[in-house]
Amino acid sequence: MTYDCSFLGELDLDGDVSFGDSHRDGRAGDWGTPDEEKVRPDAVVWPGSTEDVSKLLAAATERGVPVTPYAAGTGLEGNATPVEAGISLDMTRMDEVLDVRPEDFQIDVEPGVIGSAVDEAVASHGLFFPPLPSSGEFSTVGGMVATDASGMKTVKYGEVADWVLELEAVLADGTVIKLGSKAAKTSSGYNLKDLVVGSEGTLAVVTRVTLRLAGIPAQKRAGRAVFASLDDATAAVADAVTSGVDVATIELLDETSTRMANAYSDTDLPDAPTVFFEFHADHGVDEEVAFCRSLFESNGAERFEVSADDTEMAELWQARKDLAYAVQSWDPDLRPLHPGDVTVPISAYGEVVSYAKELAADRGLIIPCFGHAGDGNVHYSVLVDPDDPESVELGERTYSDIVHRALELGGTATGEHGIGLGKREYLVAEHGEAAVRTMRAVKDTLDPTGTLNPGKIFPDE
Amino acid sequence: MTYDCSFLGELDLDGDVSFGDSHRDGRAGDWGTPDEEKVRPDAVVWPGSTEDVSKLLAAATERGVPVTPYAAGTGLEGNATPVEAGISLDMTRMDEVLDVRPEDFQIDVEPGVIGSAVDEAVASHGLFFPPLPSSGEFSTVGGMVATDASGMKTVKYGEVADWVLELEAVLADGTVIKLGSKAAKTSSGYNLKDLVVGSEGTLAVVTRVTLRLAGIPAQKRAGRAVFASLDDATAAVADAVTSGVDVATIELLDETSTRMANAYSDTDLPDAPTVFFEFHADHGVDEEVAFCRSLFESNGAERFEVSADDTEMAELWQARKDLAYAVQSWDPDLRPLHPGDVTVPISAYGEVVSYAKELAADRGLIIPCFGHAGDGNVHYSVLVDPDDPESVELGERTYSDIVHRALELGGTATGEHGIGLGKREYLVAEHGEAAVRTMRAVKDTLDPTGTLNPGKIFPDE
Repeated sequence: MTYDCSFLGELDLDGDVSFGDSHRDGRAGDWGTPDEEKVRPDAVVWPGSTEDVSKLLAAATERGVPVTPYAAGTGLEGNATPVEAGISLDMTRMDEVLDVRPEDFQIDVEPGVIGSAVDEAVASHGLFFPPLPSSGEFSTVGGMVATDASGMKTVKYGEVADWVLELEAVLADGTVIKLGSKAAKTSSGYNLKDLVVGSEGTLAVVTRVTLRLAGIPAQKRAGRAVFASLDDATAAVADAVTSGVDVATIELLDETSTRMANAYSDTDLPDAPTVFFEFHADHGVDEEVAFCRSLFESNGAERFEVSADDTEMAELWQARKDLAYAVQSWDPDLRPLHPGDVTVPISAYGEVVSYAKELAADRGLIIPCFGHAGDGNVHYSVLVDPDDPESVELGERTYSDIVHRALELGGTATGEHGIGLGKREYLVAEHGEAAVRTMRAVKDTLDPTGTLNPGKIFPDE
Repeated sequence: MTYDCSFLGELDLDGDVSFGDSHRDGRAGDWGTPDEEKVRPDAVVWPGSTEDVSKLLAAATERGVPVTPYAAGTGLEGNATPVEAGISLDMTRMDEVLDVRPEDFQIDVEPGVIGSAVDEAVASHGLFFPPLPSSGEFSTVGGMVATDASGMKTVKYGEVADWVLELEAVLADGTVIKLGSKAAKTSSGYNLKDLVVGSEGTLAVVTRVTLRLAGIPAQKRAGRAVFASLDDATAAVADAVTSGVDVATIELLDETSTRMANAYSDTDLPDAPTVFFEFHADHGVDEEVAFCRSLFESNGAERFEVSADDTEMAELWQARKDLAYAVQSWDPDLRPLHPGDVTVPISAYGEVVSYAKELAADRGLIIPCFGHAGDGNVHYSVLVDPDDPESVELGERTYSDIVHRALELGGTATGEHGIGLGKREYLVAEHGEAAVRTMRAVKDTLDPTGTLNPGKIFPDE
């Protein structure tokens, strides 16, 4: 499909427009889009202001031209792939930090600001942005808001939605609205702010974000523990969370993942299930670490290392940080299918991880499992031979079986990456026909012409 | 207006139906509805099950009969007043605790469960429900969800919405939907859960709630500090919050409020601005208290009392706990107008409080100010002579001036009681025409016949 986007030249935008091949190619998909599923947009627009976004959306809606918001392209579910071509709305040049109000623990940013730049802008005030995802050095605030992202510290601090106070957003018809409040709490009217957060650019385009911040804790410890078996490791994580250990981060790598990490990062971890952790506190951090250690050891931890030194902490953690790359580069002949996540209640965490490993063993597949274990979150990839249709089919089926198992256990098909294209088939299984019908009704109300990011979230009808 | 509700007898409900005067009178308003604004419903229905709610709503929608959800009736903004008569849907008999899952820090309840009963159900597991409002011994979980309530501990733990994981709810046409997830986080589909939370029964009727819980802290301290001036007291609160003191509660009573509290509770507090506080921690609580004390004293605190003893803590706090009654009973000839709240960013807290006190002085009015200061929240009442139209008019105007000042300062017209009837006139001033139009569109989509709680939230068109 191709759309005539020549009207873009007449809009008199502050920002820029390109019809060039390299610009269009660069926005044909995101980190999660395989080459064969990429779709080139007909044009790329970099808006320079809220007014630009408003003018563009009004004109595109009038002409029936799809608009797919784009930013860093770090999504893993094809969230920013312009499946129906049209316009890729690249928000990366709206990247100003507008205001920092340390006395209110608040910052106002444009959506193109990179996550780690938020931390840089507020560090001198002793503040930080806690839910930063692992991709925070690349991902934009707008992207994080679009998927309601979360990260390693979510187990203590919550997800992105918990840290968004107020949004400015533009509806498909060009209307600019303000959502939420700069007050710490509000019961005023419908909570449209949290409706837009996580809606993946299908309801509105966010043009300004007020984030809440947290104080940098006085005490930090980081470390890792090695377990003899995966069951021991998942039981230790669940035990720590259920016992109320105040962890800031608790990450699991299964044996397959540690092997991949060792190969990639040139580390010498034992090829065994490993739990990485970090503690934040203003008081008593060593008591919390000791409590955690006792729980871990009673669950069979064989090696427990911890440090308060920044360099040492980083070394202990290196393998975890490199893991996404390690999985990608494990075997040049294999490709990881859909590197997504599922999330379950913590009591079901061991069950969903062991189910994935059983399928791997039974079906002769390589399935590294890792993730933000304290949230009940598992990232897993099924490695397949992309040239072998049977391998791909088996991989797809296995991937899907794990999502369905997570749903049976009271979990969600995606804890942090959104539905995008990749998880659409699970939407009804998770929420039921009636809830999905209600979601569609909301979409049809806010964007009746289907201008914004078509093809995402909802399964084809 | 009167509706024929004789169809109720044909629905074969598990629950009960009444057309009796005393039942109808009892649901003609809530704690915030003056007698002259009460409206008797035509019938009262106590549903016994989700199926009952579904049958009833489908039948009422088909017949164009309004349905106003009702529970404890502790709302302060007329949220449950059946302004168009019809059916009062009393949820208080759906009051079962369905399941407690301590390993997941979760409880499933029916909406009629009283807030404090949640704490009782989970205390033996070392857990509690942190955002319980001050009315928690009377208010139901359903009511708290409907207004997105919050309470004294919100400054540390957040509001009710932050502790609701999953809802079952019934739409106006009788459709039962499930919203949210039992997973600790989700990015799956639109966040309809937080759209329904705080929607005051205008979008759906909640029939089951999964709440998240917190571990009871190992250390608690409670106390109070007396200040020479209101400016000192508000500056001390803002300083503590901005400095990251880890308070669980921080409440302000101005001089007028302490005088009322002394009269009602027979306490001997100085008639001076007083800050009540509570600390929760697993480690280092006394260090936090000492830090707070030093900040308070550098802001002019004249008396700082603190205790770790339960009985003593309760005594120190008694005056704060009785305050709502103290205001009501201060002068039998005066009536407190709309005892609501506004909430502003903490840096503007002193400004909104002193503005209210200036108006009181300039206009010769009694305006007690108190509230959850750490959130930037002020409860205030303007006392008026209900038999003197000039006094009522001046009171109304003053009340309104304070709300508008809060909005100018980046705040919200209601931090925790909802819009109901009483705050409808501020909705557009706070959110803008376009956002309110969007809210209306959502309402029209989910409840096209306007069955659910008509007349609330939106100003008359």
